[in-house]
Amino acid sequence: MGNQTVVFDNPPVILSSYSVVGPKEGQGPLGKTFSKVWNDQLNGEKSWEVAESKMLQEAMQGAIDQAGIPKDQIDVMLAGDLLNQLISTNFAARQIALPLIGIYGACSTMALSMAVGSMLIDGGFAENVLVGVSSHHDTAERQFRAPTEQGTQRPMSAQWTVTGAGSVLLGRTGAGPRITSATIGRVIDFEQKDANNMGSAMAPAVADTLVNHFHDLQRKPAEYDMVVSGDLGAVGLALAGEVLKQSGIDMGTKFTDCGVMIFDASQDVHAGASGCGCSSVVFAGEIMQKIKMGELKRVLLVGSGALHSPTSALQGESIPGIGHAVVIEA
Amino acid sequence: MGNQTVVFDNPPVILSSYSVVGPKEGQGPLGKTFSKVWNDQLNGEKSWEVAESKMLQEAMQGAIDQAGIPKDQIDVMLAGDLLNQLISTNFAARQIALPLIGIYGACSTMALSMAVGSMLIDGGFAENVLVGVSSHHDTAERQFRAPTEQGTQRPMSAQWTVTGAGSVLLGRTGAGPRITSATIGRVIDFEQKDANNMGSAMAPAVADTLVNHFHDLQRKPAEYDMVVSGDLGAVGLALAGEVLKQSGIDMGTKFTDCGVMIFDASQDVHAGASGCGCSSVVFAGEIMQKIKMGELKRVLLVGSGALHSPTSALQGESIPGIGHAVVIEA
Repeated sequence: MGNQTVVFDNPPVILSSYSVVGPKEGQGPLGKTFSKVWNDQLNGEKSWEVAESKMLQEAMQGAIDQAGIPKDQIDVMLAGDLLNQLISTNFAARQIALPLIGIYGACSTMALSMAVGSMLIDGGFAENVLVGVSSHHDTAERQFRAPTEQGTQRPMSAQWTVTGAGSVLLGRTGAGPRITSATIGRVIDFEQKDANNMGSAMAPAVADTLVNHFHDLQRKPAEYDMVVSGDLGAVGLALAGEVLKQSGIDMGTKFTDCGVMIFDASQDVHAGASGCGCSSVVFAGEIMQKIKMGELKRVLLVGSGALHSPTSALQGESIPGIGHAVVIEA
Repeated sequence: MGNQTVVFDNPPVILSSYSVVGPKEGQGPLGKTFSKVWNDQLNGEKSWEVAESKMLQEAMQGAIDQAGIPKDQIDVMLAGDLLNQLISTNFAARQIALPLIGIYGACSTMALSMAVGSMLIDGGFAENVLVGVSSHHDTAERQFRAPTEQGTQRPMSAQWTVTGAGSVLLGRTGAGPRITSATIGRVIDFEQKDANNMGSAMAPAVADTLVNHFHDLQRKPAEYDMVVSGDLGAVGLALAGEVLKQSGIDMGTKFTDCGVMIFDASQDVHAGASGCGCSSVVFAGEIMQKIKMGELKRVLLVGSGALHSPTSALQGESIPGIGHAVVIEA
């Protein structure tokens, strides 16, 4: 690195992508781009947690099947979720039975896992790497906020955790879009303490990573067909644009956010979506399709994570943020 | 990989190591090997969680200072802990201010972070990588078990979570022991459900990783001066030896465990120690000293993680385990 960005000598290929979402996500504007839509949040399982883990397993198995790569040719999986001790990941990995590197980056986990997975391939340590990331609205609500049954009113700055699992299979060789570079972010904290406004807490970290990314590669935002954060929501996206403007970077009109894209105004989600499943399914669905169809040639995905916990919030700590970026090219 | 083990072409160097522990660890048989011993569990902070985060920060800063490498020459940090959403790591990383890759492997986090960090260096993506891992007895007790004040009686198979933070600085060049290979483990579950007997839950995963490691490198246990798990405790260590014997591998007398080494019988910890701080401080302290003094020439460190959560345990799930191994040579 030296700076925060690595450029891959032999850019890893995204051999396949697969996404599974819940009913609300299926009814949203990107509904048709997902590989599979569940009819309800439990899908026949006895708990939301088991359902989330099965959803992640389904997404990862879907990516493996779609690529047609035998499992014994996949060297390692990088995966993560929002649940304490990564239980969705661990129980899914028990079934997938591949060597596991557990990643925690809150909602930035998809971009971070794709970045590290690409390093393992380009570095010569793996031929194929499976990446899988999930979140579930109801497991997140009860872990981070309040019992779902309580019906707590949400402020307008709040984001709605996506029920979804996305997976990509990365390979050293083969056909598909390529991951050409990655920028690993630093923890940035502007002392925002409102857990119902995570977009604002994460915006400065996304801006920091974008500033460093553009500087490291000597590029401008206009050199990307899309710069997409995941997930700042509407409040955080506007704020990140402001912070970048103050750094002398005009993001133009191609700066958007997975949390803004996945739901529409009629779905009553307030500031948009969040949860690491959000950027994983929007990337594995909509964005991958547009890249494959030639509508997008160079995309910058910036995962954004709010690195607090209910304990740290109760203890009065502010919410540190982080942003990790990967460049995907057709 | 192809198999589960990677061998490094240019083995990364362990440039420095630093460990900070609580008072009980300081009074144990390895007390003199730690860089710093705190006089109490809070060390003047307002909560155990803040104390743990400060301890991790102190260990990582200690490793940086000891190596004498300017911080702007460190490309990235890999770090993790046991707390929900890795708050010890995130708040420490906010202060250290280096790009962060958050790792979750339960008690296997030290070995896993050293493995991935070595891949980033040998792969050409980083010149220097900081690794830091912590646990804290009291933060873990209240998160995973029962209020400390309650004084719940512990069964004899239970392990005592270490209060400690260990850090190593890895570099592409320089003097010191080298990390020559790494084996990434799979999730293994023998359907053990007793969260007061995690050693038994993890033993099959450690055995699986060791079997694969010896097979991949065509080595025998006798080719290591020490094979040390972290942390199976006394119950798990004996069980792992049994499982390996059934696979035709006799571990001999050099198979031990960080959780067995760090406390002695008079300290009333029952089956030994656990917590990802345990293997991080035993490695950064005792083991690194013996390697540097020439007493150990080739060590196999096998981090072991129990991948459950209080939620998964309450929902009746068994405890999946994982083992990740790194080889360190003088």
